[in-house]
Amino acid sequence: MKKCRCGRSGCVCILVMKREYGMEKNLKREKEHTTEYVLQKAVCFRAGEFSKEEKYIVPEEKYDLYLNGEMIHTFFCSPWYLEDLAYGFLYLEGYILKSEQIKEICVKQQEHRIEVVADKECDMHRQDVEETRKKAEERKISPKEIMSLAAALDERSHRFRLTGGVHSAALAKDGEILLMREDVGRHNAVEKLLGACVREQIDTADKTIVFSGRVAAEILEKAAAIGAPTLIAVSAPTSRAVELAEEKGILLVGFARGESFNVYTFPERVTIRATA
Amino acid sequence: MKKCRCGRSGCVCILVMKREYGMEKNLKREKEHTTEYVLQKAVCFRAGEFSKEEKYIVPEEKYDLYLNGEMIHTFFCSPWYLEDLAYGFLYLEGYILKSEQIKEICVKQQEHRIEVVADKECDMHRQDVEETRKKAEERKISPKEIMSLAAALDERSHRFRLTGGVHSAALAKDGEILLMREDVGRHNAVEKLLGACVREQIDTADKTIVFSGRVAAEILEKAAAIGAPTLIAVSAPTSRAVELAEEKGILLVGFARGESFNVYTFPERVTIRATA
Repeated sequence: MKKCRCGRSGCVCILVMKREYGMEKNLKREKEHTTEYVLQKAVCFRAGEFSKEEKYIVPEEKYDLYLNGEMIHTFFCSPWYLEDLAYGFLYLEGYILKSEQIKEICVKQQEHRIEVVADKECDMHRQDVEETRKKAEERKISPKEIMSLAAALDERSHRFRLTGGVHSAALAKDGEILLMREDVGRHNAVEKLLGACVREQIDTADKTIVFSGRVAAEILEKAAAIGAPTLIAVSAPTSRAVELAEEKGILLVGFARGESFNVYTFPERVTIRATA
Repeated sequence: MKKCRCGRSGCVCILVMKREYGMEKNLKREKEHTTEYVLQKAVCFRAGEFSKEEKYIVPEEKYDLYLNGEMIHTFFCSPWYLEDLAYGFLYLEGYILKSEQIKEICVKQQEHRIEVVADKECDMHRQDVEETRKKAEERKISPKEIMSLAAALDERSHRFRLTGGVHSAALAKDGEILLMREDVGRHNAVEKLLGACVREQIDTADKTIVFSGRVAAEILEKAAAIGAPTLIAVSAPTSRAVELAEEKGILLVGFARGESFNVYTFPERVTIRATA
């Protein structure tokens, strides 16, 4: 285990300790003072009357990402799972290929900084997620599983119900959600999920991504980088996202709401018996 | 009037001719072959049954922006009003301060390029939108106007109804929508509206922005750059957007749906009589 070197007050140190305690347990965390919601005074108009109320709104904060002392990016994000956001960004942008390269990660809330110490000269090769996905293309998913995953995402979206301002991205298997990440930005939500997958070295070939938002090309690209062969979205896809899903072998489902959904690519991978 | 110099097939030339024919008429346009919708084959699951259908989905395309021959940005956007997107981006990023600096703009659809020739050495000063806005702070808006603008945005959102994948940003005055811009990306929609305001040199001090999406900090920043003192959103704001609206003197309304809305900043600028 490594100790964070900053030693300042207001620092939430995340000490990287690899693969010793299994998934979601291999990071020891000190108490996180994350802002779950902001209570905002508002004047609400309903049924012709004004009233003063306190409303829950989603926190959005500016965080600068430092890699080995150099500022490389600014996020406008919700202050949850910032370490995953950093992992996701660094992986997507090609700074790291594997979680082992990150030696230390420190979220300094008072200074709004995420500081990462990483070994960029790592000689490992990027895991070929497309290869992994290809192996999984024979995997089928049932209408029942698609509908139950969309319902499970909705059920777990407490933050959305309170604030109306959050997007959710989840990783699921066999109809169950394993991991979920949320953010005010839908791109950040997917990047956090990607970061969690990279950090935890999760085998995604038999997993499904469930996403609350619209699927534009950049969302599809990030979902493809996670490596899961199936993406179920509550909202609409764009034309370019459908093309990319076709190219990358991803089964893309949109408008998964209640008892219905649309399959845009590889419908042969959805089992035909509705009750299956 | 200037002629576009490219002379290629597939080029949609937009010839800039300033302030001669008034708002929305000062650009002569050749026929635009923009893609309104993409018809996508999908397998739809409803009431326990599969059916093959064609669904309208929103076009998303990659366009590179060239300024005086140099590639400076890539948009993932819907191919409508790309000239406004360019104006909005160039203004926000500080490349131009006034529309007069743009001498020529050419959207090459086959090559997916937007080419701009602009005079960057212009000695004009940025119009102080905050000053303009301050003068307008005494202006009141009635609950009736807020509700009718939200309804008008919804009514005009044909593309959203067909595809479920579009965001809309509109400029309004006295309960009427004057201009509306749409895009698969909510940031692009606001940037297109900003671009239209810059291009047309619209006095925005007495106008209102109406927006379909969530208001994060970056959306608020762009809305502030438009210069209108009021922003009505159908969806939620974030904590940082509320702070910025407070700083910039913008009356921020959220969750404007049906007969209700929430006022997050400057409620004294909403008239108290519900029927006013």
